Amino acid sequence: MHFISDGSATVCPEIMDAIAAANRGHVFGYGEDPWTQRLDGVFGGFFGKPVRVFPVSTGTAANCLALATATPPWGAVFAHDEAHILRDECSAPEFFTSGARIVALPGRDAKLTAETVSAALEANPVSVHSIQPAAVSITQATERGTVYRPAEIEALSRIARARDLVLHMDGARFANALVSLGCEPADITWRAGVDVLSFGATKNGALTAEAVVFFREELVREFELRRKRAGHLLAKSRYISAQLLAYVETGVWRRNAERANRLAGHIAAAAQPWLLHPVEANQVFMRLGEPGKRALRDQGFVFYDWGAADSGIARFVAAWDQDEQDVRKLVQALQRLATTASGPR
Amino acid sequence: MHFISDGSATVCPEIMDAIAAANRGHVFGYGEDPWTQRLDGVFGGFFGKPVRVFPVSTGTAANCLALATATPPWGAVFAHDEAHILRDECSAPEFFTSGARIVALPGRDAKLTAETVSAALEANPVSVHSIQPAAVSITQATERGTVYRPAEIEALSRIARARDLVLHMDGARFANALVSLGCEPADITWRAGVDVLSFGATKNGALTAEAVVFFREELVREFELRRKRAGHLLAKSRYISAQLLAYVETGVWRRNAERANRLAGHIAAAAQPWLLHPVEANQVFMRLGEPGKRALRDQGFVFYDWGAADSGIARFVAAWDQDEQDVRKLVQALQRLATTASGPR
Amino acid sequence: MHFISDGSATVCPEIMDAIAAANRGHVFGYGEDPWTQRLDGVFGGFFGKPVRVFPVSTGTAANCLALATATPPWGAVFAHDEAHILRDECSAPEFFTSGARIVALPGRDAKLTAETVSAALEANPVSVHSIQPAAVSITQATERGTVYRPAEIEALSRIARARDLVLHMDGARFANALVSLGCEPADITWRAGVDVLSFGATKNGALTAEAVVFFREELVREFELRRKRAGHLLAKSRYISAQLLAYVETGVWRRNAERANRLAGHIAAAAQPWLLHPVEANQVFMRLGEPGKRALRDQGFVFYDWGAADSGIARFVAAWDQDEQDVRKLVQALQRLATTASGPR
Amino acid sequence: MHFISDGSATVCPEIMDAIAAANRGHVFGYGEDPWTQRLDGVFGGFFGKPVRVFPVSTGTAANCLALATATPPWGAVFAHDEAHILRDECSAPEFFTSGARIVALPGRDAKLTAETVSAALEANPVSVHSIQPAAVSITQATERGTVYRPAEIEALSRIARARDLVLHMDGARFANALVSLGCEPADITWRAGVDVLSFGATKNGALTAEAVVFFREELVREFELRRKRAGHLLAKSRYISAQLLAYVETGVWRRNAERANRLAGHIAAAAQPWLLHPVEANQVFMRLGEPGKRALRDQGFVFYDWGAADSGIARFVAAWDQDEQDVRKLVQALQRLATTASGPR
Repeated sequence: MHFISDGSATVCPEIMDAIAAANRGHVFGYGEDPWTQRLDGVFGGFFGKPVRVFPVSTGTAANCLALATATPPWGAVFAHDEAHILRDECSAPEFFTSGARIVALPGRDAKLTAETVSAALEANPVSVHSIQPAAVSITQATERGTVYRPAEIEALSRIARARDLVLHMDGARFANALVSLGCEPADITWRAGVDVLSFGATKNGALTAEAVVFFREELVREFELRRKRAGHLLAKSRYISAQLLAYVETGVWRRNAERANRLAGHIAAAAQPWLLHPVEANQVFMRLGEPGKRALRDQGFVFYDWGAADSGIARFVAAWDQDEQDVRKLVQALQRLATTASGPR
Repeated sequence: MHFISDGSATVCPEIMDAIAAANRGHVFGYGEDPWTQRLDGVFGGFFGKPVRVFPVSTGTAANCLALATATPPWGAVFAHDEAHILRDECSAPEFFTSGARIVALPGRDAKLTAETVSAALEANPVSVHSIQPAAVSITQATERGTVYRPAEIEALSRIARARDLVLHMDGARFANALVSLGCEPADITWRAGVDVLSFGATKNGALTAEAVVFFREELVREFELRRKRAGHLLAKSRYISAQLLAYVETGVWRRNAERANRLAGHIAAAAQPWLLHPVEANQVFMRLGEPGKRALRDQGFVFYDWGAADSGIARFVAAWDQDEQDVRKLVQALQRLATTASGPR
Repeated sequence: MHFISDGSATVCPEIMDAIAAANRGHVFGYGEDPWTQRLDGVFGGFFGKPVRVFPVSTGTAANCLALATATPPWGAVFAHDEAHILRDECSAPEFFTSGARIVALPGRDAKLTAETVSAALEANPVSVHSIQPAAVSITQATERGTVYRPAEIEALSRIARARDLVLHMDGARFANALVSLGCEPADITWRAGVDVLSFGATKNGALTAEAVVFFREELVREFELRRKRAGHLLAKSRYISAQLLAYVETGVWRRNAERANRLAGHIAAAAQPWLLHPVEANQVFMRLGEPGKRALRDQGFVFYDWGAADSGIARFVAAWDQDEQDVRKLVQALQRLATTASGPR
Repeated sequence: MHFISDGSATVCPEIMDAIAAANRGHVFGYGEDPWTQRLDGVFGGFFGKPVRVFPVSTGTAANCLALATATPPWGAVFAHDEAHILRDECSAPEFFTSGARIVALPGRDAKLTAETVSAALEANPVSVHSIQPAAVSITQATERGTVYRPAEIEALSRIARARDLVLHMDGARFANALVSLGCEPADITWRAGVDVLSFGATKNGALTAEAVVFFREELVREFELRRKRAGHLLAKSRYISAQLLAYVETGVWRRNAERANRLAGHIAAAAQPWLLHPVEANQVFMRLGEPGKRALRDQGFVFYDWGAADSGIARFVAAWDQDEQDVRKLVQALQRLATTASGPR
């Protein structure tokens, strides 16, 4: 019973069908195919604004290519200390940016606040001796399963704009945040001041399809050269673009995310005594303690240890295709756990 | 009638089936899935030697990650002036290697010779002021549709070994070379002294699947960190590994390449007056002149201009799924062209 | 009356003489001159151990070249949040290391403790997704004018060694620390577990002369290629090596540092009410408040604002050649300030 | 009797005096000192045009920082195959530019021609797959001791300008070229279309002083951040700026270069049978053959072997301070050699 990651999930049928449908005839490659050519239009409709969309095959590539357009090699990107770009991408951001620095900032529930960013900017005067503030990066939904409200994003974007910083959003679980908030895509992106978005589909039912979405044309600059140079321009680009089109056009983004969030909600309800954060998307963090974790593992549940070896923290992720039966069993196991000595600590 | 590139082709049914078959259940990601775990074994069987295999999604990534393990940032990689790594990958090799240099060498039919490499090595004494020779990179089949014989590779590898250089092979069209030579995979790789191979499947019927194959374990080093850091470690790695397994295990590598080469042979026979190189794989280069090219384009043939704007050179590629009818029409068009005033120049 | 920095000071006569004495006849360049050839021996004597010494012209170069030998591009260097390599070298460490990360850690008096480093190492499990711990870097004397005791360094080195991390020391003010502690050079370097030292002479009376000193031969690796490639191998290397030799051999390192520390002590005594840290070398940090700073500036004192714009913190540095009269005037001004309303806050 | 390099020479008295004169009082560092602040004005007078001047301590740094402002990481710099930036700076240009490519072009007497550059630009169509042409770099005087005439530079600059490429000049021996041509500094720089110049003083009598001179303000961009980040911003910048000021203001640039060129002329006259190139500055290249080289070495002459181990080519450099007696002896030795069996080949 795998609750290890939504990256462990399968591909949903609509996307498999789209790949099969694209598998006909010779077409120009490297983004010159009809599928890729449609991306800007379809995503423009989704976001309610003209956008530029570039498909890539991993979230790491999406994030790092986005950041590389947002910061010079001597720039600083302000991000939460738990940000995926800091914790889980080796030194990919530094690689793609030719050496920019991610400045780690604290914040409850893995969220940056305008105050924290502001204080970090004030703390060090900028000169030729310092790094040059260049961007702010936030994750939506966050690495701890919480979501930023539109007003929170706006507050951050005001800070960013005042200092001429780019505001980047890592949207590996963008759909989960969107359905959680029940708002329009625009409300948590360009309308709230986001300049560039890493739009993730892989975790939510695609085979391997992410996109960098620019809300400000002037930021695109040499993006295409950067992507090519990082080996992320696919010859057979149609197969990735077809996934993204199906993801947006058929509405599976919504259906899949709603299901995942709903199941996470069930888990959260049963995990109340151990919850570390509000469960606002499809991830549930619990401080189970080592005995609690052991008890669940003994019953066949597979999940991720979080943080230091002895933190006692477990992460459970509900994927779009999570087995309902498995969730039920997990809920029951948690309920049993709550009533035993190996319960909360 | 597309003869523009084998990168424009579709995915063959066996590989589509393999992707579908892999689409079941949750599995660990990032290469920990059962498909990826089988790669070393299956490729070891294919090559007749224990190997280490790492899947990536583009040929650029395969080449550049391979080179990055083969040269320090201050190293030199000797390659043919027409090498894909020099001409067609933006500055990706420099990016992945943190600034190593590709030294462009001349050579007939897009092939390096032991003599040329040897002369280049002798020309500049090595010191702290110079770049440090680190690797030799050859392409099999070459960018001009020719192939290296085992003895040619061996001669190069003797030079490389004597100077402690890594021998890299860009095998974007490896299967086409293999069926052309009718030899064993081992004969043109490790047995001939190749240390690391970029193994391409995408152009020959895969969706998007390439692999870096190490024949010397000690070269692997930090490959996995380099791959992660370049955004080329896929969460849903099973879907790319399943392609590679099907490609090798079902034998479609052979069937697809044989068909492509055979059709290229038909085209070559009709293009005799204009041929620039022996046609040994699935690419045909003709010096048609601008009028000749125009004549063919007027009849609906789509192909690539090669070299300078006024070179008059055209490249026709026969893909694994090339329409037999299209090939027949091209052959007839070439035959007509040969009998008219707009013929050879 | 400049108390802005020891980098604003002049060159001491002994070093000017050494440069003049070296200015005779043609010699081989790029480190092949007799002066540079003597460095290993002379520094070996100074440290009481065979060492390898490489001169460079700036502290930034010394630090970053040292770090580049200590960490791969995917590595992490643990340093104090106030470390010069984090605050004052633009993104030079990232540049030289091709993208390694400096992890900022807290600590009193700008000092790392074994506990802090240990906790940081435990906090994040190491995998292909994470950065790879590679080095610890400390500054001696620190950026806040304090010094590490031998036992403190040893404690850090035990942590480093246990995890196979390199221990680097930024010794831009190494002589000031040394005379402050009254110990042997070995006691705060190799004997305490330091692997590589940035040895500064510029701030303490040289024209422009720093050195990277390796206490473990195996770390030297491609240092010379890295230095050349960064433009830090001087053709006329004799003039920098002559400075370093004079600095060590004539004992001006000690005389200059003792004088600077002594004068800083006088200032510290008068600044007691505002002192932020123990004054253990030649830097004095005071929380004067803006009115206090203004009062001193009005009397002609030049000094550095530290931290955020409204921090009220001032830094006074006593250089080797600080005018005794100026120091007296500063002491008197501070005494006056202590007795007025614009005093401590 | 050292003819190995002008980098082996001493520092001329006027420059030593300037350093001594600058050694008084505390001044702001990092380029804020009065000497550095005068550079723009003094060099503006020298070149007859407002310029921006940035001192650095090595020619490698000057060249590579200049190139880094002229090309993006995905750009190409066209240079002669013998260019110092290709042959003698390890992979420094790639390092500073984060991976741009130097394209090696042939040309008589180590000189690029407009035709060669033009042909190279035409040979490869530019697309997202290719490197992006960004700059042309020439060396004045060249690595083979020849000089570009103003008209030759203009022809190159027309090509460059038409393609929006930056024209860079490596002027490690700029003064030698200038006195050889007897023209104004402007004639071979901005008036002929040069955009940025690496201005060398070290080889011609300075201690260690080079400068990057921008003739177009808009190219300066983040130069200062790049310099800091590469460790080439000196705290005690006054001592390098004082050298540059003395070099230009006292006219030693001319006196020293005239003497070096004159002595090289004497050597060239005696080396007539073996000369490989016109001797237009202070370097003399001879194809002496191994026996000839041995004969000279047996008489105590120290010089550089050029090219491949068995090339038989020797380089003799006349430095600004070359001993007149040594030159006379070399002339006599060459004359003797010319009359013996071990003569020309």
